[in-house]
Amino acid sequence: MSAHQPRRADVEEAAFRLGGAIRRTPVMTLAPGETGLDGHVALKLELMQHSGSFKARGALNSVLCLPPGTTAVCAASGGNHGGAVGWAARRSGITADVFVPTTAPAAKIDRIRGYGARVHLVEGTVREALQACLSFSQAEGAALVHPYDAFETVAGAGTMGLELEEQVPDADLVVVACGGGGLYAGLAASFEGVADVQPVEPDQCPGLAASLAAGRRVEVAVGGVAVDSLGAASVGQIAFESAQESGVKPVLVADEDITAARGYLWDRLRVLAEPGACVALASVLGGQVAVHAGQTAIVVVSGGNHTSFP
Amino acid sequence: MSAHQPRRADVEEAAFRLGGAIRRTPVMTLAPGETGLDGHVALKLELMQHSGSFKARGALNSVLCLPPGTTAVCAASGGNHGGAVGWAARRSGITADVFVPTTAPAAKIDRIRGYGARVHLVEGTVREALQACLSFSQAEGAALVHPYDAFETVAGAGTMGLELEEQVPDADLVVVACGGGGLYAGLAASFEGVADVQPVEPDQCPGLAASLAAGRRVEVAVGGVAVDSLGAASVGQIAFESAQESGVKPVLVADEDITAARGYLWDRLRVLAEPGACVALASVLGGQVAVHAGQTAIVVVSGGNHTSFP
Repeated sequence: MSAHQPRRADVEEAAFRLGGAIRRTPVMTLAPGETGLDGHVALKLELMQHSGSFKARGALNSVLCLPPGTTAVCAASGGNHGGAVGWAARRSGITADVFVPTTAPAAKIDRIRGYGARVHLVEGTVREALQACLSFSQAEGAALVHPYDAFETVAGAGTMGLELEEQVPDADLVVVACGGGGLYAGLAASFEGVADVQPVEPDQCPGLAASLAAGRRVEVAVGGVAVDSLGAASVGQIAFESAQESGVKPVLVADEDITAARGYLWDRLRVLAEPGACVALASVLGGQVAVHAGQTAIVVVSGGNHTSFP
Repeated sequence: MSAHQPRRADVEEAAFRLGGAIRRTPVMTLAPGETGLDGHVALKLELMQHSGSFKARGALNSVLCLPPGTTAVCAASGGNHGGAVGWAARRSGITADVFVPTTAPAAKIDRIRGYGARVHLVEGTVREALQACLSFSQAEGAALVHPYDAFETVAGAGTMGLELEEQVPDADLVVVACGGGGLYAGLAASFEGVADVQPVEPDQCPGLAASLAAGRRVEVAVGGVAVDSLGAASVGQIAFESAQESGVKPVLVADEDITAARGYLWDRLRVLAEPGACVALASVLGGQVAVHAGQTAIVVVSGGNHTSFP
């Protein structure tokens, strides 16, 4: 897997490769009268994607790019990427070993196992899980599918942007949560020259903000309600370069605003998203990211794997 | 409120009246490879409507048709219609009294109160709630908004069909749950001459099936997992006439198939619908309603009010 930055053409190639294997998830648009904001909000309901999150895009693209004859993949994950790799591997008839922090939600671990993947619980965070996965990959020869910092992962994630251009052709702004930054970087590639893409982080997982402030990638302590999906110890190199290149300003939201956005989605729309998937909406409802009159902001609701069947 | 059957033009008039006050809820299409069925299934995610169910359409249309100067409405409901009337009344600045069976789910009762409506709990089923509501209406002069058997309610519900024609222009078939039959009759009016509309009932709420068999509207005992949304003691006159006119055959599904369809929606799509909203999907997944190769069936997921925030 290479770590250079995909461009629009690479995203288009990934979309061609994925074809009908990825769902075109729906968009629900809320008018200003509903939200109290000045502009429109178009929610991209990506929690309805295969495996319950956008990660299916990058995982399947990565698996489809493996050398012919590959029979085994491995991945490290807070849960969503692991489920997506399990799903993609099962679909391709190969095995998957997934390394997950012991703190991952039970619902996510159950889903990874549900796809037939072997789960390895690792003490620590995604960082330690990645280290264990790397050792496993080297020892066993299983191909490592990176959760966010690989060309194929980012190009796959970016395919969401091509759909969105058709679904919301008048979008001025795309707001998306950033952990390792794979989806952010993918959308930045697909929307380059078309619309601004704004990454948003929980203030307890400020990897991108800290790195932009330092002028280089730095590690941060991670925690809070969205740590299972946005808890990368450092933002990926691809996302970091993408953010530096575009000159984007980091935006941070508090846990209480993430939780409030999650309640909003359920109360108003009966959408049960996971906390990390509510970070982008939190920034818009809280006013950290402005949606001006006459504008339409796409807000990505990126996954729904936190909860077991209620 | 008159009980004669609306036609396509009446539905169009209702859509014009409702304008942007009703949400255009999204559609998610599943390919045959996903469902194992021969044709495509287009899920209409109407649980994302205002008030959490399609009932907002008929309730608001009814409220907007009230004589000028009306200050109070009342309604009887298993819960969804009550929430919708509460929502519509609050929006119009008038009061709402809602009569609900004591067996209604707590989440639905809480939501009705959340819209500022006064809730009256009635022993029995929707039938007894309707009787209590009628007495209240006569004593207090509040305008009764019928849950399913009124021209304005049915015409409002039918507006979903106009959206669907644009969203799924190639639909061959529309599959929808039937309790009192307001939504069924509304869709039959909007899709007349365009696509067949198939009503589906839980086998424990077989009001339409029993009435078609008897050749006249009969009362049935109601129960089972979907009784809170489909537990009308008898199908409405409007829906009955509509079904007789079209020559449709009744379809019944078992509670276990409804529950399985509900689990399917959550497992595959992270959609948390209420049991009554899974009746149409149950008939398609169970094969009672066939979706042939090359066909697209619209399947309505009509509400999501059964569950409190998990």
